[in-house]
Amino acid sequence: MLSKNQIKLITQLKNKKYRNEQQLFVVEGVKSVQEFLSAKYFECHQLYTTKTELFAISDDLMTAITPKELQRISNLKQPNTCLAVFKNPESQNFTKNKGLSLVLDGIADPGNLGTIIRLCDWFGIETLYCSEDTVDCYNPKVIQATMGSLNRVNVVYINIIELLKNEEALIYGAFMDGKNVYKTALDKTSFLVIGNEANGISAEIESLITSRISIPKFGTKKQTESLNAAIATGILLSEFYRA
Amino acid sequence: MLSKNQIKLITQLKNKKYRNEQQLFVVEGVKSVQEFLSAKYFECHQLYTTKTELFAISDDLMTAITPKELQRISNLKQPNTCLAVFKNPESQNFTKNKGLSLVLDGIADPGNLGTIIRLCDWFGIETLYCSEDTVDCYNPKVIQATMGSLNRVNVVYINIIELLKNEEALIYGAFMDGKNVYKTALDKTSFLVIGNEANGISAEIESLITSRISIPKFGTKKQTESLNAAIATGILLSEFYRA
Repeated sequence: MLSKNQIKLITQLKNKKYRNEQQLFVVEGVKSVQEFLSAKYFECHQLYTTKTELFAISDDLMTAITPKELQRISNLKQPNTCLAVFKNPESQNFTKNKGLSLVLDGIADPGNLGTIIRLCDWFGIETLYCSEDTVDCYNPKVIQATMGSLNRVNVVYINIIELLKNEEALIYGAFMDGKNVYKTALDKTSFLVIGNEANGISAEIESLITSRISIPKFGTKKQTESLNAAIATGILLSEFYRA
Repeated sequence: MLSKNQIKLITQLKNKKYRNEQQLFVVEGVKSVQEFLSAKYFECHQLYTTKTELFAISDDLMTAITPKELQRISNLKQPNTCLAVFKNPESQNFTKNKGLSLVLDGIADPGNLGTIIRLCDWFGIETLYCSEDTVDCYNPKVIQATMGSLNRVNVVYINIIELLKNEEALIYGAFMDGKNVYKTALDKTSFLVIGNEANGISAEIESLITSRISIPKFGTKKQTESLNAAIATGILLSEFYRA
């Protein structure tokens, strides 16, 4: 049974301001919740479920609820059997990636960020650097799109100008008018910067890029303008790792 | 000024059944609407806009509305300045693709279908074959994700078993346990089948596949399960075209 305070907290966590204040975020779906429960860096605050038998956690962390109650607190049109509130991980001293580092400069769409986190997991990129204006990785739509992979990728929000400005490694940037990536020798001990969906890489970061790369367009229609940012990231990462 | 009947029609078009009955669908956003207006195969039924000066179409096809009215009929949280209803294109005798043909076997997520249509546009795949249980390409979320490219790609819903069963060209299928795509010689005069997000390629289609391919996982964590279907499609198309 849900209390009014619990409903209020969960509803407030849709809002980034409250997530930051409370240092809590919401995960939905059995598979994702189970992955977060077993993840090293995440601690469960409270689990709400219509099927308590699915979860092996202590009773004081679990609240049995009805499907109707779940519907009320869920962010999904078709809620699954559970919703859990987790604590933000303690900020860690993230070590630099050994291989390629991915840097997001202002990604705004939650689905894109979630998909990119899932890509990092697939390609083994441990730390993802995000500019401070990149969408919050604890946004429910981001969590949804990550399919549980957020607990295997460190997402770090930092001043990416400071990160990159004294960097000696190559810094690749994805541009519409860069060099054909299929014909570029790619150095994996490097950084790859992906810009905002509408505006691309910001001017200050652009000045730090050492190699501008592009995915060539094969379609011949001139109105075709661009690829989705997460798709472009996927194709570029594939190019870095395929060799 | 919007009439009750207009509001009713637009609201009903959120529903696939009504879209099929009426042979109409909704497009939002200035850029997308303008692209559909200038596209060969699409005819405008009615355009509703807060900025009539942006559109050069005959008066009887355009209705000036207030931002509040737009909010009422829009599928978007932050509606743009217009919403248009278009007629479904006449069914055409689609010619086969000269190069690679992409076949979707039960893609269910509207965002994925929209992103895949955008990929076809980018890579110059003119006709996209979809199984009859693939999500409707006139679903508002699909249209949104295509960013206007739906008017440059023919999306054909057919019995894909019939399409493929007597096919002499190679039929590639994306599987979790296929051959490393980076080490496979890819023949571009062929078909590539992408399966449903949760269940993959259906058993009947699987028996028609001549070459099972996979994108290898570089991350080392065993819980990492899969890539998003649109991302996998993007990486595979890139592999076909990069050579």
